[in-house]
Parts: sequence; structure tokens; C-alpha cells
Amino acid sequence: MNIRIVLLPIGPLIATIAAAMLLPALVDAYHGNPDWRVFVATAAGTFTLGGLIFLSLRREPFTYSFREAVLFVNIAWVAVSATAALPLYFSELGLSFVDAWFEAVSGLTTTGATVLTKLDTAPPGLLLWRSLLQWIGGIGIVVAGIWLLPALRVGGQQLFALESSDQTEKPFSRIERYAAALLVLYLVITVACTLLYVLCGMSLFEAVNHAMTTVATGGYSTSDSSIGKFESNAVLWVATVFMVLSSLPFIFLLRLFVQRNTAIDPQIRYFLLIAASVMLVILVYRKLEGETIDFHAVTQVVFNTVSVITTTGYASEDYTQWGDFAFGLIFFLTFLGGCTGSTAGGLKVFRLVVIRQTLKQVSARLVRPNQIVSVRYGAQNLSDEVAASALGFVFVYFATFALFAVALSFTELDALTAISASATAISNVGPGVGEIIGPSGNFSTLPDLAKWLLSIEMILGRLELMSTFVMLLPVFWRPW
Amino acid sequence: MNIRIVLLPIGPLIATIAAAMLLPALVDAYHGNPDWRVFVATAAGTFTLGGLIFLSLRREPFTYSFREAVLFVNIAWVAVSATAALPLYFSELGLSFVDAWFEAVSGLTTTGATVLTKLDTAPPGLLLWRSLLQWIGGIGIVVAGIWLLPALRVGGQQLFALESSDQTEKPFSRIERYAAALLVLYLVITVACTLLYVLCGMSLFEAVNHAMTTVATGGYSTSDSSIGKFESNAVLWVATVFMVLSSLPFIFLLRLFVQRNTAIDPQIRYFLLIAASVMLVILVYRKLEGETIDFHAVTQVVFNTVSVITTTGYASEDYTQWGDFAFGLIFFLTFLGGCTGSTAGGLKVFRLVVIRQTLKQVSARLVRPNQIVSVRYGAQNLSDEVAASALGFVFVYFATFALFAVALSFTELDALTAISASATAISNVGPGVGEIIGPSGNFSTLPDLAKWLLSIEMILGRLELMSTFVMLLPVFWRPW
Repeated sequence: MNIRIVLLPIGPLIATIAAAMLLPALVDAYHGNPDWRVFVATAAGTFTLGGLIFLSLRREPFTYSFREAVLFVNIAWVAVSATAALPLYFSELGLSFVDAWFEAVSGLTTTGATVLTKLDTAPPGLLLWRSLLQWIGGIGIVVAGIWLLPALRVGGQQLFALESSDQTEKPFSRIERYAAALLVLYLVITVACTLLYVLCGMSLFEAVNHAMTTVATGGYSTSDSSIGKFESNAVLWVATVFMVLSSLPFIFLLRLFVQRNTAIDPQIRYFLLIAASVMLVILVYRKLEGETIDFHAVTQVVFNTVSVITTTGYASEDYTQWGDFAFGLIFFLTFLGGCTGSTAGGLKVFRLVVIRQTLKQVSARLVRPNQIVSVRYGAQNLSDEVAASALGFVFVYFATFALFAVALSFTELDALTAISASATAISNVGPGVGEIIGPSGNFSTLPDLAKWLLSIEMILGRLELMSTFVMLLPVFWRPW
Repeated sequence: MNIRIVLLPIGPLIATIAAAMLLPALVDAYHGNPDWRVFVATAAGTFTLGGLIFLSLRREPFTYSFREAVLFVNIAWVAVSATAALPLYFSELGLSFVDAWFEAVSGLTTTGATVLTKLDTAPPGLLLWRSLLQWIGGIGIVVAGIWLLPALRVGGQQLFALESSDQTEKPFSRIERYAAALLVLYLVITVACTLLYVLCGMSLFEAVNHAMTTVATGGYSTSDSSIGKFESNAVLWVATVFMVLSSLPFIFLLRLFVQRNTAIDPQIRYFLLIAASVMLVILVYRKLEGETIDFHAVTQVVFNTVSVITTTGYASEDYTQWGDFAFGLIFFLTFLGGCTGSTAGGLKVFRLVVIRQTLKQVSARLVRPNQIVSVRYGAQNLSDEVAASALGFVFVYFATFALFAVALSFTELDALTAISASATAISNVGPGVGEIIGPSGNFSTLPDLAKWLLSIEMILGRLELMSTFVMLLPVFWRPW
């Protein structure tokens, strides 16, 4: 284990975050808000720190071992979150450190749970900073989903290792090209979303902020009433389209837009099918309950369902008031999430596909014990190892959810708040259920301990648990 | 598929239930309760029906195919439940058929959720009938857990196929001997429990009823206030000991008592460890909450925890009032259940062991991709197939739970009632959570549709889901 190469890339990472702080500094300076000094000062400080780390540790080219990659990614998350929390901590809002940390983690993990109130009158620099964190976190997780998670073989992610699919397809021959292409794609989508929001009547500032948190499936808004503030069906439809787009594998989008390659990853079909079915069921349910199902009502159902299933967490109205059935359905949706390789969180739809295929195999073996039944994920064979990893992951996911729910209830939260907070944090959705943390509430009044727990759970969820839990194994620390 | 041999054993089964009806008939006749005529009449009717089925279908010796066994076990459950519901339906209580059916299913599956009120003044024959149903259901599931479920290879149950362990151990050379020995053991435990209850101050009638529902981990009582009625710590400790005993694999008990073979199945260690840890945690929590932890309080915690984890469902006080943390913990316990091969329901502890071993393997593979890591359950190798079956089972379990919870919320139950009813039914525990179906409530006021759904879920849970779900596969019905 070489701790130097583990810490080395933390330097440029922190420096990048520092550079990003200059954007809100500019906006605040333009609006004459004194917080611009906070952004510039923390930017200078952290840029220096990042530079020092890099310079003191730089060395010859190197490659990571499994252990070093795991350590790096965990340390990087903590370091970047702490850095990102600094401007929030020193700002005129007077947040406690735990609140600033919670807000930064919730941003970078694209969760979108917030401890801030009075967003509508908050300094523009801070609002932009929150949106930027989500935007950076979004592209970060796309890149992680393409290289890091498959390399770490987390919960069946080895299915998406580029090497294996590249042998036949070679859409981009070198990794640097991929990364550049993904970044350009991400930018293009964000700009397109911004323009459409402006067309729908948002101010440029609102449009930029919401576009960044839409394509990151993050859910931070510039208003306490979230995106519902605009009272515009057009805005909701734009958001819906871009949330869905950002929940698809970015590799697929890249191939589709650049190469006109329409080969569909099986998880995409399932994702769209599940989303459509749930909307239909909720619409029928609301109709049976006597609601008038006009265009506005359809928009509300489609938008809020997509917002939860893509783990964005915008709210245009309090969907927890739609009756117990819709409520239960949406609660279970919280766990699912989008496709892997996207900005969405949750269990990831591909695991559902793997589980379905495995169950098919198990059932077929029930009826015909002596017949060999092989199962596939798209064009690939599903090995028993991938199946066990994916199923094991789902188990660890729910066990972690349960553990945190119980721990949260220990901090004096009521059961509904504790359970839904745990679900929303591990899946990186955002709002929970109930008076306190529901779509119309926020996380500010939670005890500090609960905020710490939830911030840890958000990072765990974002790193797909195993990337962190593997460090708990004694074998991880034994270098032989 | 030979439908004759599928239906043939239904005859003797129904006839056995009919014969069992004579016991409550005797008790009612002794107490001068007119219901004795109902029991005798339904006994005569169903005995005749059972005899006719047997006589019209009997044939040469035969063996079951997988398909025939699955069909038999599903049809048998419905037929036996319907038969058992008849005396309840025709009794002076004036139950609707759905209520009688619900009560019978809840009895035979050893769930113990009840739609009856005013148990303290109910006719003794009916009370005895309910307890008898649980007692019969209890031994039924022990036998199924030893032969049927391993043979059907349900959710990893193939681990417990007697053939494999018998090759080395041969504790009882023939299956008939096993069955007889198990029945004797079950009887002996029941009689011992009865005697101890009498010593603790129960009347003989109460003792017999509670002993039958204790060793069946069923939970029906002769009083609305359940076993709490006796206000006796001694009673609670006797119940605790016998509930734990009945949640251990009966094969283990047989070997222990008859052969002094103390070889311990790994699931037993886990089961006891989990139960002990949970009690300890709840005790510490209650202490921190400012409760006085005296002998009575310890008894309450131990008894109620054991009652839930063994899926019995007795209540001595409303443990859902112990605070959110204890509440959450107990709710998650609802799913776990006891050991396989016992009378307990739930997910079964052995699956937790298999999952733990699989996760160990998956994690070890994470760190060392090229190393072969084999995992074991006790002395046996865990194949990838068993691992996938067990993990898949857990997934199907929670998916079914969620599906029924959502369906129940559709019948206008509130979320807490719907979720906890689904959990308690699939795990065959008994009481749920909340005003309506909590430990001090009952299921009588639920809509009929909810009762039907729950009765189906109880049977699904008891048959470990796959035994029924396999019939939904098209391949099941294709005879080639």
C-alpha cells in the first residue's frame, strides 16, 4: 500500500473544487453580496492546500492497486465534501459546521436534502454553489460508474467493465477521449436544459441553477417551494425529460448521439417500463379516488413520479398526500433509482434485471434440476459470481437502510421520519416523508447526530456501499 | 401429470381434520354447549368426503414427480383450510365465511392473527379448535421442513435434504421412524409445557390450549389480553423457554434428546445470538429511557422479543409503546423468524447464515479476484446454486411483502396498518402495529378484501413462497 499515490490526486481534486468557487464569487460580487470574499478566500486557501498536496507527493506515473483505489475514493469523498462545506460554513448564513457539511455532502452526492430555509432570499452565490456541487457530483458519479465501480466489481458492476464490451465495439479507443466526450455531452445537455427553462419563463439564474440540479438528478432548487414555485406545466415537462435523460447510462447517450448506435442496454427498457407503469397505476388510482385527471393532474403525477424514481427529489406538490396507496408505491420507488452509469442513485435498475434473470434461473432449476440453464444480461453471460454480487448488494443495501433507520430512531426521530430519511439518504433522493422532512419540509431541525448519520449514509449510497464496507474486512488490511 | 395421485392424499388429510373435530365436540358436549352438534356434523360430513376422495382415487403405490408434489401441497392447503373453517362458520358465533376462513388459515399457518373478539367468554370447543389447528399446523410444517421443502429445493432448503446428511449419520434409518419419533417428541414437549403451565396456575383447559399454541409458535390464546391475562412472570418464562425450543430444528431436538448428539446446526447459534443481542439492546435502551429495569421488566422484554422473533405473536403488554427505537428493532425482527425444520415462520435464520457466508465470499473476491474462496454451511459446502436460491428467496420475500403492503393500502388501510399487516402475515407472526391490528387490537374490522389478501399471504409465507410461485411459471405446465 502506497499512501503517497493514494493522497496525491486529492490535491488536484481539491484545487478543482477551489477553482469552482470562483463562479459563485463572481455572481456574488456582481450582486454586491459580501459573501464573494468568503468564496475567494476559501478558494485561495484550498487551492493552495491542493497544490501543496500535489507538489509534495508528485512522482513518476503509477497504477493503482485495488486497495489504493478504495482508499483513494473514500478519502477523496471526505476531503472534497469538507472543502465544499467551507464557503457554506463561513458564509453570512451562519451555519454550524455540521449543517454546512450536510449541505455539501447532500450536494455532491446529488441527494438534494437541504438544511437551508428561506432559499428565495438567499445570496445568489450560495445558491449557485449548491447547484454547482450537484453538477460536479453528477459528472463525478457518471465517471465513477464507468471506470471505478466496474473496476472495483461492486455489486455486479463488473458487467459494465469497458474492456469486455470494448473488445467487440470500440466506440472510443482511449479513455481520455471517453472522459472528454462525456464532459462535453454533460455540458451540452445542461445548456440545452437551461435554454428550455429560459423559454418556459425562468430567469437565466434560475434556469442555470435548475438545469445543473436537473441533469445531476440532484434536486436542489433556488426556492423553498422547489420547482413548484414556477407553477408551469411546461417547466415540469422540461424537467421530466431531462431527469429521465440523465437517468440513462451516459455511455448509451454518447453512442446514441455521436454514433447513432441505438443498441439498448436491457436496464433502459426496464427503467422506462417501470416508470411508465407506476405513473399509469397512480393515475388510475387517483381517478378511482375521485380526482379530476386533466392535463395538469397528469403533469403532476408524471413529474413527481419521475422526480422520485430518478432520485432527483424535486417536488411540485406534496405527493405524500395522494393517498396511502400512491404513497406506498412512491416509497418503494425511492429505493430503485435509475440506470448505472447515469447521475441517478438508488439500487440501480440493472440489479433488478440481474435479479430477475437469476430468479428465472433458480425457478427453472426448481422444475428441472438436471437441466443447465444459462442466463444473460443483454449480450453477456451472467456468471454466478455477478448474480451473487448483485443479490448480495441488494441485501447489504436494505440491511444498511434498516440499520440507519434504527440508529436514526435512536436520535428521537419518529418512526416515519427515521425510516424515510434513511431511505432517501441511501438512495440519494432528497425529501423524505412526513411533516418534518417531507416534500414541503426540510432537514434543518434534525438533531446533529442525525445529520452526521445521514451524511455518512448518503456517501455510502453514492459509493454503492461496498466501496466503503470493503475497508471493514480484516483481509483488506493484510498485504498478502 | 397424474391428477389422481395429486388429489388422493387430500382424502386422508381431510379425514384427519374431521377426526380432530371430535375433540372440541367432546369438550363442548361436556360443557353443555350446543356447538358440539356443529363439530360432529361437520366432522361427519368432511370425514365422508375425505373417505370418498380416498376410495375413488386409491391405486397402486406411486411416487410423486416435482410437479405433482407442488400441486398437491397447494391444493392440500386450500382444502384443509376450507375444511377447518367449517365448524367456525357454522358455530354460534355467526362468523361470515371470510372470517371463518381467515381464522382457520391463521391457525393452520400458526400465524395467530385473529378476527374473534370476546375470547374470554367464547365457547370452549371453539377455543380448543383454534388451538388444535395451530398445533396440527405446527407439526405439519415441521414435517414439511424436513421432507417437502428440501425436496422442492425452495430458497436454499436443499441444504437440509436428509439424504445428504444421512449418508454419514443415519440417526434414524427409515422415514416412517422419523415421522413417528417427531410426532412423539412434539407430543412430549406439548405435555411438558401443559404441566408447567398448570404448575404456574393456569386451569387445565387454559394450559392445554396455550401449550398447543406455544409449541406451534402460533400465538392463539383463550383470552383477549393474550397470555398477559395471567399476570405471572412464571407463565411468561415457561412460554419463553418453549417458544425458543420450538424454534429450533426438530431434527436437532430429536438427536439431542434421543441420541445425545449435541452437534449444532450453525443456524441455532445465530438464532440464539441474535435473540440475546436484541433483548440486551432493548433493555439498555429502556434503561436509558428512564424505565426501571427490575425482574418484571426483564421478563417483559425477554418474553415479547422471543414472542416476535419466534413468530409466535403472544403479547403480554403493548411492546409497540416501548419507544421508536425498540419498535423499529422489533419490526425488523418480524421478518427473521426461527430455524428451518421448526414450527417458526419468517425468513429463517439459516438464510441469514447463507447470506453472511456469501457476502464473505463476495467481499473476499473483491479484494482478491483471482483467489478461489469456498464457503461452508456447517460441514457442507455452499454451492453457488444454494447461495443464489437463498438470496433470491430473500428478494422474493421482500418483494411479496411490499406488493401485499401496497395492495392492502389499496383497501383503504392506513400505511402503518397495511405495512405491518403484510409483514406479520408473510412471516406468520400474528399481531401487527398500530391501533387496529397491534398487540392489543385484532383483525376483525379489516375489510373482507384485506382478509382474503392476508390469508393468501399467510399461506404463501408458510409454504416459503416458491412452492406456490413456481406454479406461475409457464415451464411448470409444460410436460416436456
